[in-house]
Amino acid sequence: MTAYTATVTVRLKRGVLDPEAETTKGALERLGFELEALRAADRFEVDLEAADADAARDRADEMAERLLANPTIHDYDVGVTER
Amino acid sequence: MTAYTATVTVRLKRGVLDPEAETTKGALERLGFELEALRAADRFEVDLEAADADAARDRADEMAERLLANPTIHDYDVGVTER
Repeated sequence: MTAYTATVTVRLKRGVLDPEAETTKGALERLGFELEALRAADRFEVDLEAADADAARDRADEMAERLLANPTIHDYDVGVTER
Repeated sequence: MTAYTATVTVRLKRGVLDPEAETTKGALERLGFELEALRAADRFEVDLEAADADAARDRADEMAERLLANPTIHDYDVGVTER
């Protein structure tokens, strides 16, 4: 077994409104920053042990499917690095 | 001016309690997943135009310092890619 860190990034799908991100963008603009768009995402870093990187990725993928992301409104991607 | 996407990842500093991450870890375990630790972070993807990548990074860095992160409890890092 090898120790991995799987990183799951969960984003709202294109077209899903994100009022929190809009508020953050507005606040940055009021502070004088110039920006065109801002998207917010949740990032989960999961430490786990697995036989190999593919097994770690599969497990993180299943965590995203079952709990971390809501497939109706979210897209996600998974990255795996050895710890 | 070139179009960049700056990615700001905001994490709780080591030692700061994160009950939301603990709850998520517990929920994954109740679903039968094996994991050693889970950390949650906020990720902001900011589209902006800047003279070069260094200028884009500097601006994103200042956004983190002034609004996106709370330096008392958060660490952050900034990545920049051309769009």
